[in-house]
Amino acid sequence: MDPMAQLWGAIEAVWRSWTLKKAVDYRRVNGIRDDLGTAVNVVAMVFGNMGDDSGTGVAFTRNPSTGERKFYGEFLINAQGEDVVAGIRTPLSIDEMATRLPGAYEELLATEERLERHYGDMQDIEFTVERGTLYLLQTRTGKRTATAAIRVAIEMVDEGLIDHRKAVLRVPADQLAQLLHPVIDGSVRAVPIAVGLPASPGAASGVAVFDPDVAERRAAEGVSVILVREETTPEDFHGIVAAKAVLTARGGMTSHAAVVARGMGKCAVVGAKDLQVDLEKRQFTVGEVTISEGDWITVDGASGKVFRGDLPTTPSEVVQVTRGMRPAHNAPTYAAYARLLSWADEVRHLRVRANADTPADARIARGFGAEGIGLCRTEHMFFEGDRIAAMREMIVARDLDGRRRALAKLLPMQRSDFEGIFEAMHGLPVTIRLLDPPLHEFLPHGGEETKLLARTLGISRAELQNTVESLRETNPMLGHRGCRLGITYPEITQMQGRAIFEAAVRAKRRGIDVRPELMIPLVATSREFENQRGVLDEVAHQVLGAMGEEVPYTIGTMIELPRAALTADEIAQRAEFFSFGTNDLTQTTFGLSRDDAGRFLPNYVENGILPDDPFQVLDQNGVGKLIGIAVTAGRSVRPQLKVGICGEHGGEPRSVKFCHSIGLDYVSCSPYRVPIARLAAAHAALESGSQEPSRP
Amino acid sequence: MDPMAQLWGAIEAVWRSWTLKKAVDYRRVNGIRDDLGTAVNVVAMVFGNMGDDSGTGVAFTRNPSTGERKFYGEFLINAQGEDVVAGIRTPLSIDEMATRLPGAYEELLATEERLERHYGDMQDIEFTVERGTLYLLQTRTGKRTATAAIRVAIEMVDEGLIDHRKAVLRVPADQLAQLLHPVIDGSVRAVPIAVGLPASPGAASGVAVFDPDVAERRAAEGVSVILVREETTPEDFHGIVAAKAVLTARGGMTSHAAVVARGMGKCAVVGAKDLQVDLEKRQFTVGEVTISEGDWITVDGASGKVFRGDLPTTPSEVVQVTRGMRPAHNAPTYAAYARLLSWADEVRHLRVRANADTPADARIARGFGAEGIGLCRTEHMFFEGDRIAAMREMIVARDLDGRRRALAKLLPMQRSDFEGIFEAMHGLPVTIRLLDPPLHEFLPHGGEETKLLARTLGISRAELQNTVESLRETNPMLGHRGCRLGITYPEITQMQGRAIFEAAVRAKRRGIDVRPELMIPLVATSREFENQRGVLDEVAHQVLGAMGEEVPYTIGTMIELPRAALTADEIAQRAEFFSFGTNDLTQTTFGLSRDDAGRFLPNYVENGILPDDPFQVLDQNGVGKLIGIAVTAGRSVRPQLKVGICGEHGGEPRSVKFCHSIGLDYVSCSPYRVPIARLAAAHAALESGSQEPSRP
Repeated sequence: MDPMAQLWGAIEAVWRSWTLKKAVDYRRVNGIRDDLGTAVNVVAMVFGNMGDDSGTGVAFTRNPSTGERKFYGEFLINAQGEDVVAGIRTPLSIDEMATRLPGAYEELLATEERLERHYGDMQDIEFTVERGTLYLLQTRTGKRTATAAIRVAIEMVDEGLIDHRKAVLRVPADQLAQLLHPVIDGSVRAVPIAVGLPASPGAASGVAVFDPDVAERRAAEGVSVILVREETTPEDFHGIVAAKAVLTARGGMTSHAAVVARGMGKCAVVGAKDLQVDLEKRQFTVGEVTISEGDWITVDGASGKVFRGDLPTTPSEVVQVTRGMRPAHNAPTYAAYARLLSWADEVRHLRVRANADTPADARIARGFGAEGIGLCRTEHMFFEGDRIAAMREMIVARDLDGRRRALAKLLPMQRSDFEGIFEAMHGLPVTIRLLDPPLHEFLPHGGEETKLLARTLGISRAELQNTVESLRETNPMLGHRGCRLGITYPEITQMQGRAIFEAAVRAKRRGIDVRPELMIPLVATSREFENQRGVLDEVAHQVLGAMGEEVPYTIGTMIELPRAALTADEIAQRAEFFSFGTNDLTQTTFGLSRDDAGRFLPNYVENGILPDDPFQVLDQNGVGKLIGIAVTAGRSVRPQLKVGICGEHGGEPRSVKFCHSIGLDYVSCSPYRVPIARLAAAHAALESGSQEPSRP
Repeated sequence: MDPMAQLWGAIEAVWRSWTLKKAVDYRRVNGIRDDLGTAVNVVAMVFGNMGDDSGTGVAFTRNPSTGERKFYGEFLINAQGEDVVAGIRTPLSIDEMATRLPGAYEELLATEERLERHYGDMQDIEFTVERGTLYLLQTRTGKRTATAAIRVAIEMVDEGLIDHRKAVLRVPADQLAQLLHPVIDGSVRAVPIAVGLPASPGAASGVAVFDPDVAERRAAEGVSVILVREETTPEDFHGIVAAKAVLTARGGMTSHAAVVARGMGKCAVVGAKDLQVDLEKRQFTVGEVTISEGDWITVDGASGKVFRGDLPTTPSEVVQVTRGMRPAHNAPTYAAYARLLSWADEVRHLRVRANADTPADARIARGFGAEGIGLCRTEHMFFEGDRIAAMREMIVARDLDGRRRALAKLLPMQRSDFEGIFEAMHGLPVTIRLLDPPLHEFLPHGGEETKLLARTLGISRAELQNTVESLRETNPMLGHRGCRLGITYPEITQMQGRAIFEAAVRAKRRGIDVRPELMIPLVATSREFENQRGVLDEVAHQVLGAMGEEVPYTIGTMIELPRAALTADEIAQRAEFFSFGTNDLTQTTFGLSRDDAGRFLPNYVENGILPDDPFQVLDQNGVGKLIGIAVTAGRSVRPQLKVGICGEHGGEPRSVKFCHSIGLDYVSCSPYRVPIARLAAAHAALESGSQEPSRP
């Protein structure tokens, strides 16, 4: 073969692969499916480099960063577009064009106004002036920050350019996250030492700490800490609570650390693979850098970046106002955000609830507009302080009496939490899920802690070790958990039911409108549901009878196993509501553990084997099909069955739209995603062209 | 309340609870559903205790133990039925009745013949003679042993009483197991020291051994060993191979030990909870008894009983003939069994294949009448001798080259196994499943073995430890396994494909009719299937092209995840067959790990929350619904799609009937269950009233 042709062939191959890679990257970043194809346009050239009466530039009809209504842009005299992009010459502000190329500038001004009016949205315009003549190379809808998006939408309504509905459609729901999480001050330029998965947005600085107890202690001393772990477990919970952020070397977007942090609206970077965490030495290394306990680091949960040192961050205006840390007046971003969401609320008909486990979380959720609690995970209440001790005592008890004694200690704690949540959610429904995780999760695994616990419980270390060992499971996700625990140990269900009903009565007596919904987890068969419903109804009868009060309550189930979805008609005979636990349902439908998926799932998404991480974006084709089957079957026997979802997907816009399309009543998500879900629900209603629910 | 009435009330309550318990026990043992209810009959009494011209007895129209055509029974003069049952008086042989109560005897003889002819089956008759007059209290179909069942059925055909079809229906499929497994000599009476779950039938005696290496060594010395473990893992495989039986303290009916042992037709008792296994001391204790390494024990896999000492056992006649250990003539049980199964084969239209992993297993399977291999698990080939070393080398390899070097060592071993299997199955299809389990299962976990392996591989112990650690998974069942491995490491799929195609060509050149079916495991999405199919087709093209041979092959998938079933139409676009892996499909549909289910599943079945252990009897309502969805969806795009199942359920009669009813093409089960499946398939065809397949 001719060597020159070979060379050209090689160059072409490199160019192709580079172009293809760029296209692939672009598509991935923008969520465009791989199989749609890419078009090629062939056009005639105009030249901005024909002398000083020529030039080229880029402009926006409004400021894409702030949303201000002011023509905004840059241009270069005697240049081509590439000169602007390459940054070798410093471009001039568009205002200067008025003096340098006055005729073209006048025409450009008139044109940009016409274009914006024509398209009804802010335009991003590329232009070239060839010997005084203005040519538009391109106009398209301009990309903008969340702040700008909201301001532009609101002002265009005020200008009469668009109506409320269009304004609502103008702001991508996901973008709202930008307004809710603190960010690293953009003015600082720093080089990250590592990059992990952006599991929970926000930014935080603190000293690295490698142990949850140390995290708690240092935080109590007023130190900002970032908890660094290989990966986290429920035992780390108090450490996560105490920390400003979590950083892990393992785990995916829905690993324990990611889910818990997101639930708290707390920054998390997970699966930062390059981190070598050495818990014994209390340090991590990444390349040449070693960070020891007490060294400052900063993590950015929006980008997954990890920095050395204390980079400045700030909580967002919207959060400050929502949490009462700042008055609403003189908060223009908040005002625009609140106005836009009020329009969204007018058109949506999916309700939005929050997943919240404590009265404090419930209050935050309500601040963000939650219309109830869709998931209160009672087990999270067991991990703090004294509670874990009583819980452990219950687990290692030798007999029913021992378990009952320990449960009696847990009862008042649960009751007081429930009362607080009912109070925070006055007038709104609160779905409380009974104990779900395997008991093993509550037990210590370390030597020192085991010794201490054995002493506290007054049993031998060997006996305790035996109990811990006997509860260990090969696949805890598929093990003795959920309603299986309540069926084996009905006294646990009894205690939880009692705590709920006693709390409800106490709250009611204080004038609070309580609406408890009791949720039985991990049901696979209707018999399981009936068994646990029987226990709860009996407790309700006893407690309410003894206290002489009536409390309206419903009992339903979490649909998180394929079998429950497939037999939903049987289960709905006795269940008053379904809540799809899409995290677990995704795990079982795919046969994929979210704790272990990190090893290959990113590779799957990268290579197009999966369009998205199914733990982030609901898999409509598989999991969604199962949800559809369950909704149809459930409503076939109980037309008024209330149906929602309470997995991580409840706050993900595409998933929310799917929930709308199959006629769910509500979605429930972490408090910080409630505004996103409200907006996404409005989009779903508007895009489906109906404000009526899709069910009768 | 009147104290007398109270007393009567209490007596009645005791009686009721006892009767109820008996009824419940009866129903459970006989697989009668709880919710069918129990009838009560009120009848007039007759009295057999009115003097020496009165009496009572029980008789069978044929011998229920051997099947011999001879009136058989016992009676007592001047007695009531309870006296016979209670065993306080020794009853007389029915023959004596001819002299003691001649009139009644004559009438009884005539009646029993009429009854048998009327009902067309062997009868179990209860009678009473009151002052010379014969009263029949009851007649019902008599229970019989498997030997008797077959003999009676065959002889009734020869007597013209019933036709072939009725004969086939007369023998419960499950009962055939009695003919296939060795049993403890019935003449010996011993008290079991413990009882576990009867995981794999048969009986075996041997010295207790607590370590698979020791088991292998002692077995090589010619010692009969029984491997006793807390529970087994794939690392114990060579120990199980070497042992006569397996005994574990943990695990359920489908635990590793149970499944592996059943697959080999080897006796296993699992989940014997009372066993305290002390691996360090190499002993187990149960109550007062301590069994140390080297002590003789006997286990009975049919009853779950464990005995001290060496109780005599014997392989069954059918197995001896099938395996060529005994000539077929002078084997009357075998002859009757073979005749009955030939009739079964005439009417069934479900094909029956076997799960077999080695040429030896394949030969046994063919002996039992398997019409192909439905599941050859290639990973089992990796656990022996040198192979595990090469496998481990592949896993810890630092890069692609290292993996390729190790895979090159595995290639000839796999190829030679495949060639042997093709040879054994000449003319029949062989479905080979690609590597399925997570890699972690192949690595050592003990300190000493790790040290040794590190030395062999020439890497530091720390590096090896790191690799082992990094491969550990929270839920290995839902982890990096199946086609997920092949997608991450296509070189593994390439090696396996090459081994299959090279073996096929070699066998073909030796005149063997090879029909390979390549099965891609754990597919959740059609893209995964397409990816792996692409790799295999490419290898086929290379190998067959280079060797200049054509081998017809098909590529299909194992449907073992709900998502695969739900998207079967997409997968069937490229897949030529489906094989339902009902073990894993049951695990994911129920969200239930078979390794962990032992903790509560027995309790579920006992309390009627589940009608059966879903790992034993296919859950038609849930898992079955999913299979139905998949079959319909798959055939909607590929009408000729071949569909079978290869889980444990493939040899369980009720599940086989279900497979027939939804139109599967075949079932595949462990070799020793092939005759059972053949008979169950015939029952299904006869009971559904059709000999035509239910699909067009």
